[in-house]
Amino acid sequence: MKLYDSDRAPNPRRVRIFLAEKNISVPSVMIDLANMEHRGEAYSRLNPWQLIPSLVLDDGTVISETVAICRYFEGLQPDPPLFGVGALESATVEMWNRRIELNLYGAIAAAFRHSHPAMAEREKPQVQEWGEVNRARVPTELARIDAQLSRHRFVAGERFSIADITLLCSVDFMRIIKQQITDEMPHLARWKALVSARPSAAA
Amino acid sequence: MKLYDSDRAPNPRRVRIFLAEKNISVPSVMIDLANMEHRGEAYSRLNPWQLIPSLVLDDGTVISETVAICRYFEGLQPDPPLFGVGALESATVEMWNRRIELNLYGAIAAAFRHSHPAMAEREKPQVQEWGEVNRARVPTELARIDAQLSRHRFVAGERFSIADITLLCSVDFMRIIKQQITDEMPHLARWKALVSARPSAAA
Repeated sequence: MKLYDSDRAPNPRRVRIFLAEKNISVPSVMIDLANMEHRGEAYSRLNPWQLIPSLVLDDGTVISETVAICRYFEGLQPDPPLFGVGALESATVEMWNRRIELNLYGAIAAAFRHSHPAMAEREKPQVQEWGEVNRARVPTELARIDAQLSRHRFVAGERFSIADITLLCSVDFMRIIKQQITDEMPHLARWKALVSARPSAAA
Repeated sequence: MKLYDSDRAPNPRRVRIFLAEKNISVPSVMIDLANMEHRGEAYSRLNPWQLIPSLVLDDGTVISETVAICRYFEGLQPDPPLFGVGALESATVEMWNRRIELNLYGAIAAAFRHSHPAMAEREKPQVQEWGEVNRARVPTELARIDAQLSRHRFVAGERFSIADITLLCSVDFMRIIKQQITDEMPHLARWKALVSARPSAAA
């Protein structure tokens, strides 16, 4: 088994934290995003969407998409459960993981890709107005998550889950668009200290 | 249990098809998107993201996000399995469902919201350039899915899954941006006839 990984992007970090929480070790191949290795022929054959990470099994089967890779390992080794247990908890984790990924992380990533000068050569075309619209959405999303964290220890309830991993990687990635956790988000600040102190956060 | 539904949008249709495949019947409340009922105070209290569908359980618990609602019903009634069985099939279904939703459906929805005159009053601001960029992405995504369907009966393999539901709702929604399945996509055309003939497609 081989994990195509990168130390520069939030999605591969989500998988590394997930594996650290499960105490699973997988050999990895680092892809050089700065030199556009993910857009090269070899990697594109593996994953036509040219996204990192991808997992290649011993028989050559490729699993891509961060959450799909995580779900594969959840199936192989269910403990500790990171996708919830039972119908209601599984649905709740799925709901929060999607809310965070599609709305908060989606807005941060779009703001970065479409307005950061470092992305001008990579995101073609860079649509500046789209970057600005998304940047403006980030505080609203953070406020909604802060409200949820005022009621629960972790973002999908009382148990640490993949939704916390997605949120940590999103919040840490905000530095790239110069967005901070502000004094108006005390519950998010409390949660960030809690989750950042887990050994997996260093993965 | 109550499902907040709408007959005008692809995401609530995904849930209706999913329920039809499971032969589950849930009382529903129709939300009037044309009159912006989803942006009103009552629905926003239920779902601050103002998205349809939402499922409200008898104790008042709200599950929103299409895939989370589907996963809830998969947990309650696993047969027939629509999210795959076992680690590899579950991961494969997740991968294809995400590829279709995030790339194909995402591009169609962005093209519609950001370039269709009917959305000018609802999508503020409408970023025309973003609409055009996304419209141009649709044929590339369709070609990748056509290639997958040249090798498999259904989009995630040999078994019908939620990924087929997401694909059918995406492909049917393309009419709104005047994109067709063309002669260069014979496998997608074969698959569309197969899946559209299932009784659930009318849901």
